[in-house]
Amino acid sequence: MAMREMTGDDCRALLARSSLGRLGCSLEDQPYVVPINFAYEGDYLYFFATYGQKIKWMRANPRVCVQVDEIAGQFQWQSVIAVGSYQELEEPRFELELAHARKLLERPYRWWLNVLAERQLKSDEELIPPLFFRVRIESLSGLDNVSESETAG
Amino acid sequence: MAMREMTGDDCRALLARSSLGRLGCSLEDQPYVVPINFAYEGDYLYFFATYGQKIKWMRANPRVCVQVDEIAGQFQWQSVIAVGSYQELEEPRFELELAHARKLLERPYRWWLNVLAERQLKSDEELIPPLFFRVRIESLSGLDNVSESETAG
Repeated sequence: MAMREMTGDDCRALLARSSLGRLGCSLEDQPYVVPINFAYEGDYLYFFATYGQKIKWMRANPRVCVQVDEIAGQFQWQSVIAVGSYQELEEPRFELELAHARKLLERPYRWWLNVLAERQLKSDEELIPPLFFRVRIESLSGLDNVSESETAG
Repeated sequence: MAMREMTGDDCRALLARSSLGRLGCSLEDQPYVVPINFAYEGDYLYFFATYGQKIKWMRANPRVCVQVDEIAGQFQWQSVIAVGSYQELEEPRFELELAHARKLLERPYRWWLNVLAERQLKSDEELIPPLFFRVRIESLSGLDNVSESETAG
């Protein structure tokens, strides 16, 4: 077993083949971490969410951290950490980016619309449209926990 | 599909059967998230780690967040968030707690000692003993994303 730092290319490759990450935000130095679907492209990670604690906090403090991993076993994993800044994709300013984010996140977004539609059928609950946002990646690092056979090859 | 809040008992049950979580810490409102093994008991989550960014940050700001989930599929998951405070298990003050943490984390800790021993055989690298710490849980919440068949039952 050995632990080694991942190259930038390896980090980006992991982001590209993943769709679930953990988003960390912070308010008055209280951290908060949630699992969230994302899509990666270029220097950005794209997300959607309904308004709640994380959106409120990221509007107040746009500094975020996104952690993504692939865990094959308790002692065999890769983990990437992207540090960056929150950017809400509001219209009209981010009209093109918003359409792009919708397309990139089509599958989870469509699922989410179904959940909302079902919820509405059952109650008088007001429809809360999801917000789209992206995180501009400012730094990227990763650790790879590989078995000896792989490192020796 | 429906999303519902988990009870405290359900949150604790998830912590009890899990061994991997994501630890979020923060320094000057920059969040940082890492995957980490833990053991849960009572009001505490127990961990070990070698000295590095997260330890440095948690010593400076003991407010942390630990997120633990069980993900059966992209749209079927449970997620628990524990907010609490960092407490380093130093001797002599925490001698008993330290012995207890070592016992609770025996399996990953033993694996870690092997990694360190192998590393030492190969290089002149100085042995860095791991630190043990615990997080005192101050609040606990969870979301359960269940299928209709289960909620209707």
